[in-house]
Amino acid sequence: MRDTYQEQLDELASSLAGMCDDVARAMRNATRSLLDADLQLAEQVISEDMKIDDVRASAEHQAFGLLALQAPVATDLRVVIAAIHGAGDIERMGDLALHVAQAARRRHPQSVVPDEIKPYFTEMGTVGVALAEKAGRVIRSRDLEAAVELEADDDAMDDLHKHMFTVLMDSNWTHGVSAAVDVALLARFYERYADHAVAVARRIVYVVTGQMPGPLAV
Amino acid sequence: MRDTYQEQLDELASSLAGMCDDVARAMRNATRSLLDADLQLAEQVISEDMKIDDVRASAEHQAFGLLALQAPVATDLRVVIAAIHGAGDIERMGDLALHVAQAARRRHPQSVVPDEIKPYFTEMGTVGVALAEKAGRVIRSRDLEAAVELEADDDAMDDLHKHMFTVLMDSNWTHGVSAAVDVALLARFYERYADHAVAVARRIVYVVTGQMPGPLAV
Repeated sequence: MRDTYQEQLDELASSLAGMCDDVARAMRNATRSLLDADLQLAEQVISEDMKIDDVRASAEHQAFGLLALQAPVATDLRVVIAAIHGAGDIERMGDLALHVAQAARRRHPQSVVPDEIKPYFTEMGTVGVALAEKAGRVIRSRDLEAAVELEADDDAMDDLHKHMFTVLMDSNWTHGVSAAVDVALLARFYERYADHAVAVARRIVYVVTGQMPGPLAV
Repeated sequence: MRDTYQEQLDELASSLAGMCDDVARAMRNATRSLLDADLQLAEQVISEDMKIDDVRASAEHQAFGLLALQAPVATDLRVVIAAIHGAGDIERMGDLALHVAQAARRRHPQSVVPDEIKPYFTEMGTVGVALAEKAGRVIRSRDLEAAVELEADDDAMDDLHKHMFTVLMDSNWTHGVSAAVDVALLARFYERYADHAVAVARRIVYVVTGQMPGPLAV
């Protein structure tokens, strides 16, 4: 029985880490669909989001079963609680990738993002995908050092997000109100995506140490 | 012992319902600070957000203790899991009210919102505050009918949010890019605030029925 229990805990962590890979791929494809105005890729991200929602529901179901049948304590209980939170965060990352793909679809065949802004979104996509993949590795390894690194990695996203607003507010912005609103909301989706990856890593710190790291800036 | 256990469950629900009242007040004040460019009120919302974060941490601590010491099953387990999720949602509602107050502070003594847009924010504030208060009542009463009502109430917020974008995209918009970006992000904060109130109510449906209602539009 004990083996099965440990196997169930491992399976739960493995589901979550797999979800991280799924939302990393979703954001990679969503970013490509945004930058290349690729409708087919946007549709793929949109239809695949349901799979991520299903894995989340199944992870919650596993967590509920573990709590009800095994009554875990100490570290094991923290694993299950972190998984409940993590599943919510990672599902939300999928939703945010979905929003990016929906923006690409809404403006197709036009591009949502003016050409000179594209390099920023390329970079935000790269940083976001790397954060999601690293969160997955942290779930698998419980590597505290890597978990803490995510907060520093997220600073790059915050800088890109702030810089984007400087560009938008510049009096040389010539793309009009509609493009500015699209860019502002898209930048926020990437920033929130990164925040949720950091939240996942922080929960792993809590699993290992029993303490949440200090307050997260909002 | 059983009494203490039930008392602890009730106390947890009561903490969460109290958080709903706190974030309702935060959004009421944040909206007033936004519409009246009231810096003092904005500062009050900003400083009070830490209290909400503390109540959330304490609710999670209570939930952890209940799981570790009482190993609840069935409805009681659903109550604790719903509380863990709910505390996260309600804390996020506080963060979103905080973002509204921060926008008011950032542009002070100017108003963030052009005069003719103010009625929409008045209305979004009213709808948001009502949703938060109703979520608190649903937590206290476990009234399924009221829980389901929240989804319909949220439609009013979605309509306001959509309408705001129509106004922004209108070629008669004369307030420039910066104001448009502010208004778009603010409208999104209100919409997300309402979504989290709905999520809290949906968790109460799960507590009572054992089933989550159908998928939530994202």
